[in-house]
Amino acid sequence: MTVFVLREIAQASGGRVVGDPERRVRGVAPLRDAGSDELGLVADPRYIREVEDSRAGALLVAASLESHLESDSRPRVVVEDPHAAMLPLLEALDPTPSYAPGVHPTAVIERGVEIGPEVSVGPYAVLEEGAEIGAGTRIGAHCVVGRGARIGERGHLHPHVVLYPNTFLGDDVVLHSGARVGVDGFGYVFEGGRYRKVPQVGRVKAGDGVEIGANTVVDRGSIGDTRLGDGTKLDNLIQIGHNTRIGDHVVMAAQCGISGSTTIEDYVQMGGQAASTGHLTIGKGSRLSPRGTPISDVPPGSTLMGYPARDQKEHMRIYAAQGKLPDLIRKVRRLERELEELRAAVQAGDAPRE
Amino acid sequence: MTVFVLREIAQASGGRVVGDPERRVRGVAPLRDAGSDELGLVADPRYIREVEDSRAGALLVAASLESHLESDSRPRVVVEDPHAAMLPLLEALDPTPSYAPGVHPTAVIERGVEIGPEVSVGPYAVLEEGAEIGAGTRIGAHCVVGRGARIGERGHLHPHVVLYPNTFLGDDVVLHSGARVGVDGFGYVFEGGRYRKVPQVGRVKAGDGVEIGANTVVDRGSIGDTRLGDGTKLDNLIQIGHNTRIGDHVVMAAQCGISGSTTIEDYVQMGGQAASTGHLTIGKGSRLSPRGTPISDVPPGSTLMGYPARDQKEHMRIYAAQGKLPDLIRKVRRLERELEELRAAVQAGDAPRE
Amino acid sequence: MTVFVLREIAQASGGRVVGDPERRVRGVAPLRDAGSDELGLVADPRYIREVEDSRAGALLVAASLESHLESDSRPRVVVEDPHAAMLPLLEALDPTPSYAPGVHPTAVIERGVEIGPEVSVGPYAVLEEGAEIGAGTRIGAHCVVGRGARIGERGHLHPHVVLYPNTFLGDDVVLHSGARVGVDGFGYVFEGGRYRKVPQVGRVKAGDGVEIGANTVVDRGSIGDTRLGDGTKLDNLIQIGHNTRIGDHVVMAAQCGISGSTTIEDYVQMGGQAASTGHLTIGKGSRLSPRGTPISDVPPGSTLMGYPARDQKEHMRIYAAQGKLPDLIRKVRRLERELEELRAAVQAGDAPRE
Repeated sequence: MTVFVLREIAQASGGRVVGDPERRVRGVAPLRDAGSDELGLVADPRYIREVEDSRAGALLVAASLESHLESDSRPRVVVEDPHAAMLPLLEALDPTPSYAPGVHPTAVIERGVEIGPEVSVGPYAVLEEGAEIGAGTRIGAHCVVGRGARIGERGHLHPHVVLYPNTFLGDDVVLHSGARVGVDGFGYVFEGGRYRKVPQVGRVKAGDGVEIGANTVVDRGSIGDTRLGDGTKLDNLIQIGHNTRIGDHVVMAAQCGISGSTTIEDYVQMGGQAASTGHLTIGKGSRLSPRGTPISDVPPGSTLMGYPARDQKEHMRIYAAQGKLPDLIRKVRRLERELEELRAAVQAGDAPRE
Repeated sequence: MTVFVLREIAQASGGRVVGDPERRVRGVAPLRDAGSDELGLVADPRYIREVEDSRAGALLVAASLESHLESDSRPRVVVEDPHAAMLPLLEALDPTPSYAPGVHPTAVIERGVEIGPEVSVGPYAVLEEGAEIGAGTRIGAHCVVGRGARIGERGHLHPHVVLYPNTFLGDDVVLHSGARVGVDGFGYVFEGGRYRKVPQVGRVKAGDGVEIGANTVVDRGSIGDTRLGDGTKLDNLIQIGHNTRIGDHVVMAAQCGISGSTTIEDYVQMGGQAASTGHLTIGKGSRLSPRGTPISDVPPGSTLMGYPARDQKEHMRIYAAQGKLPDLIRKVRRLERELEELRAAVQAGDAPRE
Repeated sequence: MTVFVLREIAQASGGRVVGDPERRVRGVAPLRDAGSDELGLVADPRYIREVEDSRAGALLVAASLESHLESDSRPRVVVEDPHAAMLPLLEALDPTPSYAPGVHPTAVIERGVEIGPEVSVGPYAVLEEGAEIGAGTRIGAHCVVGRGARIGERGHLHPHVVLYPNTFLGDDVVLHSGARVGVDGFGYVFEGGRYRKVPQVGRVKAGDGVEIGANTVVDRGSIGDTRLGDGTKLDNLIQIGHNTRIGDHVVMAAQCGISGSTTIEDYVQMGGQAASTGHLTIGKGSRLSPRGTPISDVPPGSTLMGYPARDQKEHMRIYAAQGKLPDLIRKVRRLERELEELRAAVQAGDAPRE
């Protein structure tokens, strides 16, 4: 079992120890979960109130919050950024199992498949004709890699991923269970009272370092390709429509939905359930709040909310104003009445009765 | 084939028969579906108009609706609560197949797996090293139970469920096809222009009696655990973020999305596509309308709608007021003009022209 | 490799060639993707600006846009409707692999299964007891066809589809990876502080020509059936609740969610993330904008937006008016003040100071 010493954690993160520097811990946890052999995390003022009742044996504390802990006698490591300080611990504790290279005897490997060195292929995986798997890539149980699909080096497909034929993934990609990549886009022409399918002849091309969440779906291009840039991270249950172009280092939270032929430039960030209508461009570095949905081009660096999406500050001003709307209607009704009364009084030559 | 007699149905449900008590039926169905050998269900006033055209051979009628059926000559069972009266019939008719215990010869059972008595493991299931399956649990075709994962007794995993390593499920759980439990949470730090993955070292712990819908995803904790309390029911296509704490007997309709580190207390009810931003608490027994999404703590017993969510009655008052907004803008414009005219008239010493 | 000649493309689509009619191309692509051996598609004025920089060797041009291309020297095919003109090319290029008929030796075929002629069953597929597969249908790798389920002729189940027991699909259906059809509906009665499951004893019945997207879920009826009419197309990640009746030739974009017992009539169109609350009817030919969600019956031919959904034009009028709301509140406050001042002036017998 991995064990860490407070002194080492402080050294690695440029922090300092208060209390016994040789204290041993086996991990880090939120205050309400941490046990006596763990560091409790004190990184956010919202959780200060949980310190006292926490069973944590030691604390990992943001320097900005240390003043709240004066009465606490537990040993602690004080650092500028506790989340950064945690990273080496977490990397040592990562539960993602390592697998020995090799092809499980139950895997189906069709003809013309190319498998690089140090590749692992799990039970019941199916690699269709002409698929290529780069060095060091791990294919989980039951994955299906369609005809002619290509995966780069050091990738990891968790169990139950399906790549449709001709999908192209770069190096260092991670795909979670149930991800479906290269699916037919939703394209029909309406003829004679029924929908006729438009064959979808494009592909998906994903860059290096892409991560695709569980049960997320990426459609292939109708003509031309759907693209995901380098370092882009998609959370779970997302829909990416056909011919979408997503740039580098884009992050989308769960359940986002991108309509066809949208262009999303580099470094865009989208909150959960955010979306985009099709055939528009979301400019570099823009941020969409949860459920934010633009219906026209978005300039670079925008921060948007609502549907149709507006500037977030304007949206929240309108939202606050809406709370006053029922009262406003009453006020206008009263103004109309009072104005009428005043006019009548003026016409009659009288001062109005108050 | 199962056959029921009206007299028995009435006895079991504390109801009474009008017409032939020995009439036999083989099931119960909505009025528009029911055949001559079935009970047509009359439980909701919306469906009274369908009674006349229904081919149902007999009726199962709420006492409160019986007065609408005076002219109908079919035998009927009249009960206080038709839905409760149906339950024993439905349990007798449940089509979920039973399987004989046993491990299918194609299942992959790695070393150190513990399988209790009366367990059924379907074709092509993969139980990774150290997994534990409690007595009477059924594992469907193609399920993957990750390393060290544990499932309690009498559980049912439908085909194509994936449990990531170290997932912990209680007794009497039901997981539908495509459920993914214990998936990496969506956690990155932004460094040098790119996102670096924060290893997710926590687990998912689900209590007894939990049901998880088809293609729903539950992320494991980043540090510490994601928890689902006893008796909690999640519908299909839901996203549960890392470190979420969901209490007992919570129900969520399809496509809900819960951001990370949210606390959802016991007996909360969420409508379809409802959501929550992260790091907040939704108090005991609260109800979120479809798509309702709070952005701050919710007191127990609240009923909320909209995003950011407001009290439902207030939300609907605002919604109704919005319908008057275009007209209100015109009224204010007219008021401004009329006030100006009146002022001008007063200044000129004249009464205004009407 | 398939090769097309401009003259033939023009003949097949009733168009005309400008430039070399014998020019050969191997496909059609968006302007930004097209290579020197491909037609660049010029079908939408938004993309005119991309013509100049496109590497396309030839162009497929809508007649209405030809005037924008006077200075372009590339050979082109000019047609009324470029999308219709593309269809024969795309059908020739369709990458969906054809499979030879036959049952893969790893497929599990339980007793009583009926398999028609020219059927293909992929690796690790599981056909449970009594399943029926019509002539010419293709079952992808790892699909599970539950007990007593029936699929018509010429169907295509992509890998990883699960049909729960007794599901009934017509002819010419296409189901994408991760589709789950016939899942238990979400039905419970609340008794003694906990939710008791109501057995779901109905089925799913889908007509001919239905397409169901990747990771979409269709629940079976609680009592009676969930129905999908002929020619209906569901995109990815959609939820269809129990006892929903969906008519013929309905199209739903990704991530729609339909609550239980909803009736959706023929030719309804729903945008992405649109939804419906339960027990209502959406009339024939109605259109819901993305995220549009009615809460009461919708007359045929309606076009709705928002939640609760309103007529789209009215919704957009209200949306525009909301932008003026913060300003309107200020105006009303000023009107109140000015009216008060005017009244005071009139009462005092003075003209107000301007």
